[in-house]
Amino acid sequence: MSKYYLNLDLCFSALGDPTRRMILQRLAWGEATVSELAQHHDMALPSFMEHLKKLEAANLVKSKKEGRTRICELAPDAFTPAKDWLSEQSAIWEGRLDRSDDYIKNLMQERSK
Amino acid sequence: MSKYYLNLDLCFSALGDPTRRMILQRLAWGEATVSELAQHHDMALPSFMEHLKKLEAANLVKSKKEGRTRICELAPDAFTPAKDWLSEQSAIWEGRLDRSDDYIKNLMQERSK
Repeated sequence: MSKYYLNLDLCFSALGDPTRRMILQRLAWGEATVSELAQHHDMALPSFMEHLKKLEAANLVKSKKEGRTRICELAPDAFTPAKDWLSEQSAIWEGRLDRSDDYIKNLMQERSK
Repeated sequence: MSKYYLNLDLCFSALGDPTRRMILQRLAWGEATVSELAQHHDMALPSFMEHLKKLEAANLVKSKKEGRTRICELAPDAFTPAKDWLSEQSAIWEGRLDRSDDYIKNLMQERSK
């Protein structure tokens, strides 16, 4: 499987969890340390770190260590692959609906003649 | 948890699998019977039906029975909740980057005075 599709698997799966979406929502406002992020979630640190790992594996978040502190931020263009895939399918689907509308319009015009 | 967030969980999780994305990609072109959909996937019918069930539970696909045939189609506005969530986060993130750009520009203007 290509890297693109594998990344979509990881990306959509990572988005399918409320804790992980809350982390992303927080990071959309700017970078944060792991402790700042973790304090809003009622779970043990190792479980919280698992969520962060999944977000990093999916290229949604990146982190760097500064001294003893790990700082997380949204990865550049984090949401682009997921948005592109969804937009592509919507465009195909809407195009089909438009063609179907045209077909019905033409049919009605033919009948009214 | 509200219905909206629960649906996002189901929706993104459903999208995190290549078989399920292939089904959606096919249905974007128009409705199809379960057998038409299943023939492109090398798996037992019960496993394939599990994928369809997850897509229906996530409000991505709907199906109806006509005689002995089950016909599937993309649910109306199937991708809207996922697209909206992603666009919202992107908008917040891009707004922050713009503000950060403005801040740096102002700082450089101040310094050059």
